[in-house]
Amino acid sequence: MSNDSIKLIDEIGKKARKAARQLAWLDSGSKNATLHAMADALIACKKILQVENEKDLEAGEKNGLTDAMLDRLRLTDQVIASMAEGIRQVAALPDPIGEINHMRRLANQLQVGKMRVPLGVIGIIYESRPNVTADAAALCVKSGNAVILRGGSEAFHSNRAIAAALAQGMEKGRVPSDAVQVVSTTDRAAVSALLKADQYVDIIIPRGGKGLIQRVMDEATIPVIKHLDGICHTYIDADADPAKAIDITFNGKMQRTGVCNATETLLIHEKVAKTILPALAKRLNQADCVLRGCPETIRLVGEVAPVIPATEEDWDTEYLAAILAIRVVKNLEEAMDHIDAHSSRHTEVIVTENHATAMRFVREVDASAVMVNASSRFNDGFQFGLGAEMGISTDKLHVRGPVGLEGLTCEKWIVLGDGQLRS
Amino acid sequence: MSNDSIKLIDEIGKKARKAARQLAWLDSGSKNATLHAMADALIACKKILQVENEKDLEAGEKNGLTDAMLDRLRLTDQVIASMAEGIRQVAALPDPIGEINHMRRLANQLQVGKMRVPLGVIGIIYESRPNVTADAAALCVKSGNAVILRGGSEAFHSNRAIAAALAQGMEKGRVPSDAVQVVSTTDRAAVSALLKADQYVDIIIPRGGKGLIQRVMDEATIPVIKHLDGICHTYIDADADPAKAIDITFNGKMQRTGVCNATETLLIHEKVAKTILPALAKRLNQADCVLRGCPETIRLVGEVAPVIPATEEDWDTEYLAAILAIRVVKNLEEAMDHIDAHSSRHTEVIVTENHATAMRFVREVDASAVMVNASSRFNDGFQFGLGAEMGISTDKLHVRGPVGLEGLTCEKWIVLGDGQLRS
Repeated sequence: MSNDSIKLIDEIGKKARKAARQLAWLDSGSKNATLHAMADALIACKKILQVENEKDLEAGEKNGLTDAMLDRLRLTDQVIASMAEGIRQVAALPDPIGEINHMRRLANQLQVGKMRVPLGVIGIIYESRPNVTADAAALCVKSGNAVILRGGSEAFHSNRAIAAALAQGMEKGRVPSDAVQVVSTTDRAAVSALLKADQYVDIIIPRGGKGLIQRVMDEATIPVIKHLDGICHTYIDADADPAKAIDITFNGKMQRTGVCNATETLLIHEKVAKTILPALAKRLNQADCVLRGCPETIRLVGEVAPVIPATEEDWDTEYLAAILAIRVVKNLEEAMDHIDAHSSRHTEVIVTENHATAMRFVREVDASAVMVNASSRFNDGFQFGLGAEMGISTDKLHVRGPVGLEGLTCEKWIVLGDGQLRS
Repeated sequence: MSNDSIKLIDEIGKKARKAARQLAWLDSGSKNATLHAMADALIACKKILQVENEKDLEAGEKNGLTDAMLDRLRLTDQVIASMAEGIRQVAALPDPIGEINHMRRLANQLQVGKMRVPLGVIGIIYESRPNVTADAAALCVKSGNAVILRGGSEAFHSNRAIAAALAQGMEKGRVPSDAVQVVSTTDRAAVSALLKADQYVDIIIPRGGKGLIQRVMDEATIPVIKHLDGICHTYIDADADPAKAIDITFNGKMQRTGVCNATETLLIHEKVAKTILPALAKRLNQADCVLRGCPETIRLVGEVAPVIPATEEDWDTEYLAAILAIRVVKNLEEAMDHIDAHSSRHTEVIVTENHATAMRFVREVDASAVMVNASSRFNDGFQFGLGAEMGISTDKLHVRGPVGLEGLTCEKWIVLGDGQLRS
């Protein structure tokens, strides 16, 4: 690790720590006013953002980024407007900080409860989409945390310009300007230094592909809130309503395919496979969805739509594409066993009209979200009403599922006494 | 790492995973009945426990364990009775599993809420006190988790005998016997294997000295709930009631000295140092507490009691003994700056009659528990009414402060629909 990178992260870390202490108890009004000023500044700086963004786009083309990647990188008028709007939406959310819960009086008259407080300093390491810079800054400021942002080198100029614009806005508010800092170097060693800066950073949130997340997990000595694979299942039960079953599976798979909460595997009870599978397979096939199935699926569907024989690997694959693995199962137990063995514990769906079956599935399946008769695509901070999200956690500790403002906070115990002593 | 150890942990892990799935949704009545049977079995096996314990005590004497260590290792009639009583107390606690919170209806009529569920498989690595075996087993069974226990080699025979007794009890109940497993080898490589068994273990909880916790942090690839130093401060404010200030400091320091929530440093406002410090120092000195102070402390107290000049190191030392570091500060800000720089974020106390000062301290000081006018010794699961605890977490994520049953659980989102699709 280069000394320059260590020194840089050390400086940034110290400033962040100091800013975090000032920010932790800033009133909501001041935080919200600053957020609106940040949104205004993004709009005001539109031209500069687009000039800087053009540099990244040109470099990206030279470096052979795909059209899809260039698209995600591009700061169009609309993207900039929606970044600003996103910040204003965060300003409109309730402030979680300072909430006191479970306050009660003990036998010795001590008042004991819990108060919600910021985590402190959050490090965010992300790829590609430059709008994460604005999103993450807004969520951290609102939840009273200082943030250190490290974007991908492919968006270097864009991220730096966005950070400069946000800083202009922050100058007009009471949030300390060091509350949002960008690591302005493309040196990869800076990421390593950030991942080990225990003394300054309370938590690391990686946002990006598997490669990035694996690197963060391997190197970080700081706790990580992460988001791994989304191998999500939809199980059509013997007591499913056929129309709902087809719609929910189709929506879960096809509404958007490149996302973590898309359905990757369909499990279907053998009793209804014969009636439901052919119609469903036909609809998927017409939408250009590739089907990969077990032998029974091939037997039932083969005449309606092409089915590639599924291998063991299919059950463990996150396609992120218009591909669906299909397996016919004997019963609920076999479905739950399959899910237990292959799920990434992200989102699991059952389609059934049977109450007892639904409740058993909800109780026993282990995932960040378990759903009855709804599309897997609903596992999302906006859909759940959190107002915004910083990714979807597949961890079990601290926060599971969409990470909203509350996921960026913790609770400390507070004890109010009148001279109580322990005997 | 030896292949035998990896194989052993692999076998134990597989069984634990299977047991966890069965245990997760066992009804409270069955779990409680099993816990009572486990308590009964401990009492019934008293003789065997003591015979096995004698082997550890003899080995301990040969290996030069101190009297204090031998004392903590000894399974007297009373220790066994209180282990059994501890299990019964856990049985009497409310079952946290299955609780559904924040259930609400979204605009599209989806019902969305959170359900409390077990973490899964918990690995506990601990030293010395064999009663941890019974405590931890009871807390894990009650919270629906399977547990893998690895005690210290100095308590090898005792732990194995306790586990065998608990297993006898479990045979009479409906909890799968693999829900509580002990790693029965003194091979240290087994610990390394356990710390890396991601595929089976959801969380590691180390209980013991700094050496153990550091090793776990360095080696674990599984999330850890840990408990590091307790460098706790009591700050006597300018508006403190002198009698309360003296009692609270004395109790915080001397009620029990070898524990994490004992006060290690006293900070005192210069306005009241002259009146309060001499009387407090005298009382501490009479109780054989060693004082280590700043120059101003020495000036004020020197004639009443001996004070060793404190060095910078003192402010960062967890004495775990009858030693108190004392520093006179100019004001609340200087006290909070000192705490921010030196605290281990375990327990922080202010003594004051001033409401605004108390509220500011409560808001701004970052620790697992912040107290007003109460002894630092109250930061404890039993004192806070949790009924039992698995240590006190100094982490910020997931659980802060005493880890009770709820700390051994997480929440998953549940979504109840009627065919909703995402558009």
